[in-house]
Amino acid sequence: MPNHPPLGFTFAGVSCGLKKTGAVDFALIASDRPCAAAAVFTRNKFAAAPVIYDRALVAEHPAGLAAVAINSGCANACTGDAGLADAVAMAAEVEAALRLPARSCAVMSTGVIGVRLDMSKIAAGVRLAAPQLSAEGWDAASRAIMTTDTRPKVAFRESGGVRLFGMAKGAGMIHPNMATMLSTIVTDAAIEPVALAALLREAVEVSFNSVSVDGDTSTNDTVLVLANGASGRTARGAGVEAGSSEFSIFASALTSLCVDLAQQIARDGEGATKFITVRVAGAASDADARAAAKAVANSPLVKTAFFGGDANWGRILCAVGYSGAAVDPARADLWIAAGMGAGENGREGEGENAPTLQLVAAGQPLAYSEAAASAIFAEKEIFVEVELGLGDGQATVWTCDLSHEYVDINGHYRT
Amino acid sequence: MPNHPPLGFTFAGVSCGLKKTGAVDFALIASDRPCAAAAVFTRNKFAAAPVIYDRALVAEHPAGLAAVAINSGCANACTGDAGLADAVAMAAEVEAALRLPARSCAVMSTGVIGVRLDMSKIAAGVRLAAPQLSAEGWDAASRAIMTTDTRPKVAFRESGGVRLFGMAKGAGMIHPNMATMLSTIVTDAAIEPVALAALLREAVEVSFNSVSVDGDTSTNDTVLVLANGASGRTARGAGVEAGSSEFSIFASALTSLCVDLAQQIARDGEGATKFITVRVAGAASDADARAAAKAVANSPLVKTAFFGGDANWGRILCAVGYSGAAVDPARADLWIAAGMGAGENGREGEGENAPTLQLVAAGQPLAYSEAAASAIFAEKEIFVEVELGLGDGQATVWTCDLSHEYVDINGHYRT
Repeated sequence: MPNHPPLGFTFAGVSCGLKKTGAVDFALIASDRPCAAAAVFTRNKFAAAPVIYDRALVAEHPAGLAAVAINSGCANACTGDAGLADAVAMAAEVEAALRLPARSCAVMSTGVIGVRLDMSKIAAGVRLAAPQLSAEGWDAASRAIMTTDTRPKVAFRESGGVRLFGMAKGAGMIHPNMATMLSTIVTDAAIEPVALAALLREAVEVSFNSVSVDGDTSTNDTVLVLANGASGRTARGAGVEAGSSEFSIFASALTSLCVDLAQQIARDGEGATKFITVRVAGAASDADARAAAKAVANSPLVKTAFFGGDANWGRILCAVGYSGAAVDPARADLWIAAGMGAGENGREGEGENAPTLQLVAAGQPLAYSEAAASAIFAEKEIFVEVELGLGDGQATVWTCDLSHEYVDINGHYRT
Repeated sequence: MPNHPPLGFTFAGVSCGLKKTGAVDFALIASDRPCAAAAVFTRNKFAAAPVIYDRALVAEHPAGLAAVAINSGCANACTGDAGLADAVAMAAEVEAALRLPARSCAVMSTGVIGVRLDMSKIAAGVRLAAPQLSAEGWDAASRAIMTTDTRPKVAFRESGGVRLFGMAKGAGMIHPNMATMLSTIVTDAAIEPVALAALLREAVEVSFNSVSVDGDTSTNDTVLVLANGASGRTARGAGVEAGSSEFSIFASALTSLCVDLAQQIARDGEGATKFITVRVAGAASDADARAAAKAVANSPLVKTAFFGGDANWGRILCAVGYSGAAVDPARADLWIAAGMGAGENGREGEGENAPTLQLVAAGQPLAYSEAAASAIFAEKEIFVEVELGLGDGQATVWTCDLSHEYVDINGHYRT
């Protein structure tokens, strides 16, 4: 049963006039019963009004949420006290329209920073969306949260009798988290809020945080998960322990769904023409591997070289060298391949047939074929592996290249 | 006496064939007597061979250097043991040609990473350059170290009877230190190496390090200063204390020269169309102010907005918010102005006549004139000031915008 959303959830996506283009810009998600909720928010000190609102809401009512409203076209960030009042009013509009208790609706916003939300348009969005809520509305909802995204990002999982659906938006990819990344995930599993929060943190670390720089987050970034229990299956709760197979199956499905959405974000990076997987292994620690992989993935010099198809591999080691990770230059190896890598021994490339090229061994450049390197850099999917030879630490990060179009998009974002 | 280089120094810049274009690519600087030397090097763990060589050389002979050889077109980085041997050989070529003692010549390289230095071309460069050394050769030398620079960067100072000359190259500006920044400064002051090293560290912090991200350094970054004492004036040494006016005058001249060169680097950023001064004041500490100013200056989203002339000021506060600096959103003010700012109260703009516009007060957006903001963003020189309202910490950082041309330059750097 592909693309069947979780039981008990309905969705809508409508146009309320916030986007100048008239495209859909207001999404609503509702549950027919209260949900366990967990969320991960930006650490930016200029957190947007909806982040401030949701942070308190989820802490206060982790078992009582029933709706999420999301607008694009305006981030409601850097809008002061008035902006916070707008976020409160947006939630209240939904609660009134859906006859929900107070403080049961979360809100998210994405778009231009520093501009007040047009509350008459938000009210119109609620009025339009509420009667359109349906199990099939997930597609419209996923389109209504797009900003510079070129396509909607959705993922479905069904496993152990429970269903998960996630939608995400986010496309700015140089310092990825600076462009707002929003994701809402819903599931009909029953799970205790504390267990859900712990699972979400783990899943986000290897997914959304693996296309981003720690601490380098936009004003609005939010990942919210709602679990309504409508499947009748419990992943964690009375009689179902953390070590149970139900719990493991749900945890795997949630992580897999988050990784899927995160990779879709990297593939749709602003102006992206290539998808790049960076794996660092043999680091002194996983944290070191992650720091090194992110430095490579976020280096504008590396990313422009990928865009240009120029096998300028020295920039990869240069980025590892300033990442802060422990490095012994005499032990570093570097491989490149087409594709996304494969499993543990990622440098095998995508299956047995992907050409793999070692460029550096024990810190010494090898006499590789320039034609072979250029052929790999010309691919649409490129895999880079750095082996540091120091320990067991490893991490994988996904990114895209940096193109002319990125500059176009961000040079005139508001105009 | 404008543009008079320090006494006792000679310069040459020649073409030895490392650059495909045939442009000058080998610079030589020599002193007629041994010099006190001090240097600041990249902290990149993949430090290039010439950095490894010079680091040991300056530590070993801080009072005995007499020459510097610099090539462009090849960075001699990520070249392993063979690359280190090449750096040693490059220095030995110069020492032999100039009849200098062993271990008296420093070497620098800049250009493509991961490619061996063509030593026959280096030898040709030394043979060509040695007979051309002259007091007037500084212009050719400054051109020979250029890579993607569009113009040479030189600065002169004369103060208290001593002269200073500096030349620099460096143009990659998103993460500035990732493109190699090289600078050689020579002076005819007499000064003890320990005092010179301390002064250089201070001067670099408020100059070259203020167009860059700490720890985010290329494989080759080097700032080297040589003082030969040919003026007969002592800035620090027998009978001249650190608190003397001679010392203060020299320190001011060295700092002023470094700031001049650093600003020239920012103005000539790859593809730069605008010069941007970011000042953060009222921070909890100078370190916080520096972190916040650098986050703004290095944000691709801020830099593309400057390129597009789009007054998307929310991105400025967003960057401050993720910089790690202590922030109370309810206390933050934001101003923009044309020009470079002026003195302590930099938000006055460039003199009394520059239009200044406050966009945010105490964390609340103001109802400013969009036309006035766009007019400032359309300027070639833009000043941004953030006042955090938390303490006395302050810092100023210089950067440039991010344009299409940056992507062109870096997408095809080697080709």
